[in-house]
Amino acid sequence: MTSQFGPSYVRAIAPYIAGKPISEVAREFGLNEADIVKLASNENPLGMPESAKRAMTEAMAELGRYPDSNGFELKAALGERYGVPPEWITLGNGSNDILEIAAHALVEKGQSVVYSQYSFAVYALATQGLGARAIVVPAVKYGHDLDAMLAAIADDTRLVFVANPNNPTGTFIDGPALEAFISRVPRHVAVVLDEAYTEYLAKDKRYDSIAWVRKYPNLIVSRTFSKAFGLAGLRVGFAIAQPEQTDLLNRLRQPFNVNSLAQAAAIAALKDTAFLAKSAEINAAGYRRLTEAFDNLGLEYVPSDGNFVMVRVGNDDAAGQRVNLALLKQGVIVRPVANYGLLPWLRITIGLPEENEAFIAALEKALSATA
Amino acid sequence: MTSQFGPSYVRAIAPYIAGKPISEVAREFGLNEADIVKLASNENPLGMPESAKRAMTEAMAELGRYPDSNGFELKAALGERYGVPPEWITLGNGSNDILEIAAHALVEKGQSVVYSQYSFAVYALATQGLGARAIVVPAVKYGHDLDAMLAAIADDTRLVFVANPNNPTGTFIDGPALEAFISRVPRHVAVVLDEAYTEYLAKDKRYDSIAWVRKYPNLIVSRTFSKAFGLAGLRVGFAIAQPEQTDLLNRLRQPFNVNSLAQAAAIAALKDTAFLAKSAEINAAGYRRLTEAFDNLGLEYVPSDGNFVMVRVGNDDAAGQRVNLALLKQGVIVRPVANYGLLPWLRITIGLPEENEAFIAALEKALSATA
Repeated sequence: MTSQFGPSYVRAIAPYIAGKPISEVAREFGLNEADIVKLASNENPLGMPESAKRAMTEAMAELGRYPDSNGFELKAALGERYGVPPEWITLGNGSNDILEIAAHALVEKGQSVVYSQYSFAVYALATQGLGARAIVVPAVKYGHDLDAMLAAIADDTRLVFVANPNNPTGTFIDGPALEAFISRVPRHVAVVLDEAYTEYLAKDKRYDSIAWVRKYPNLIVSRTFSKAFGLAGLRVGFAIAQPEQTDLLNRLRQPFNVNSLAQAAAIAALKDTAFLAKSAEINAAGYRRLTEAFDNLGLEYVPSDGNFVMVRVGNDDAAGQRVNLALLKQGVIVRPVANYGLLPWLRITIGLPEENEAFIAALEKALSATA
Repeated sequence: MTSQFGPSYVRAIAPYIAGKPISEVAREFGLNEADIVKLASNENPLGMPESAKRAMTEAMAELGRYPDSNGFELKAALGERYGVPPEWITLGNGSNDILEIAAHALVEKGQSVVYSQYSFAVYALATQGLGARAIVVPAVKYGHDLDAMLAAIADDTRLVFVANPNNPTGTFIDGPALEAFISRVPRHVAVVLDEAYTEYLAKDKRYDSIAWVRKYPNLIVSRTFSKAFGLAGLRVGFAIAQPEQTDLLNRLRQPFNVNSLAQAAAIAALKDTAFLAKSAEINAAGYRRLTEAFDNLGLEYVPSDGNFVMVRVGNDDAAGQRVNLALLKQGVIVRPVANYGLLPWLRITIGLPEENEAFIAALEKALSATA
């Protein structure tokens, strides 16, 4: 639909395509909601921690009130956990909000933003929404080409997005390589390091990005409670950056962007180290099982450090859509990544053991039916 | 703090000042939270409806999942209630989000936005955040001067904000005058009609703005669940506009801006007409009681059609701050409006009968102590 209203760069935006909700698939394919397996949106298959449910139930009495605009208690809990003062923390309505706020606070129309091909779709949306210019750097092996990204930074670049691990491909940059990159970005160019999946990293891959925030005033680390912490439905993310950047982000943050229950639940989830450990463990086991199945089926996949795996389900460009439809008909929802230009690929969120088995069985059927 | 990052118009923003949370006042003044009366943020003193609590509790099982990005069920309920198809509805993280999305979708840097002096602070914030030019039209009797606003529309104006009733002053424009104004705004200029308090209007003041949306393609009606519906802590607002405008707004809407519990609770609250009626009734009685007390104290107030009253607590510019501090020390939180340039005034949210009495007693003390 063309519109007489709004800037042309807004009219040109193609909105974000979310994973299909279970209820929608049930309606569309005439299935029972209870029979559907959803491995489409990189959520935690354990759901939310019980500790967070208890905290929310206590917070329910006060829902007629606005949330605490400054998030006093949540920032105190985050500050304690990550070793930074509250003045270094920005709260977001999910980390999606952090990414949007950062772009809006740092970049104006006509300036440029650098990010990698096949990196998270919201980087493109946030850039387009500002009428800014996207400098999209070709990926190498489906991941970030940091040297090329550095070389791509232009005079008018104000922001670089880096996702680690990256979504939807799952690729990972090791700590020393990432810090070397950040240290070489000009100081007047902000770097948003999107670590939505960092809690899933194996111990030997972890690095201390908060220590980098102390060294680099242009670095903004973005995290979320929607993945390993299990709170996708509540919407909480946060950024850690030095006070100068944090002050800027908070000027554009909507004052009540994080709701009251989300604040209460996030504090509880942050302290629930047992739930986090279990989430990582189930994820690692599920990753081994899925990739073993892909190997058995002779399917190529991109090695992933997130809670999902991207798998190539055929050689022709129609393969993604074809297999996806065959899976949907069996009540299994995964994520097509055609909007990233990855036509023969599907992104599978790692589920509970029984969900993974249901997916593998449905995939085998889908492949033989559509072969 | 000056920053090397970000556009100058972002660095110039003074962030929104929220009502002081009860916990903050308790910490600051050494008071018990239970003893504090908060009449500062135009919330519903009844809290949230029980029906919404029940709906939320049922929705809790699914909080590990992302919210429905398209808000299928909430839009269906809203559509039924207001007689519009889902393609006419945009969901917001509170109506604050709607106001920000509308400005961002309709206005670019350097273009202008028209709004009234003493109208809701977020209009200024949204305009500043875009590097757009604010055309602030002087108020008449603390309310909108519609003729002057019409005359102020410039060639580069893309958006006019109108609040009815207006916050923080409570002023009201009657339906015929408002429609006459909207009909005269040039068709390429969008009008956001912010009706956050419309559910509090007395029966003889109500008008049908949804019918106007059908007539005027440039009209966007903004509503919220934070006031009469009692869901401030959950964050739900919505806009109703023709599909062309709605499509544009949804291009900039963050895909998961409204959390799952908020969607479930809003559906329940929308159907809870008994709660809504009780809220309006308690508000009308509280308004009579507060204004009677102001009359007895010889204090000027602005007649209000919202769930709050703005009262002049002295003749000197320091009066607002002085009386506010005296109220805080007694555990009563109201809202200073100095940021609107209304220095001797305070805005009082209408509370439960006992809260109103506590406020009146504290006000009498504050006035005699500070006289």
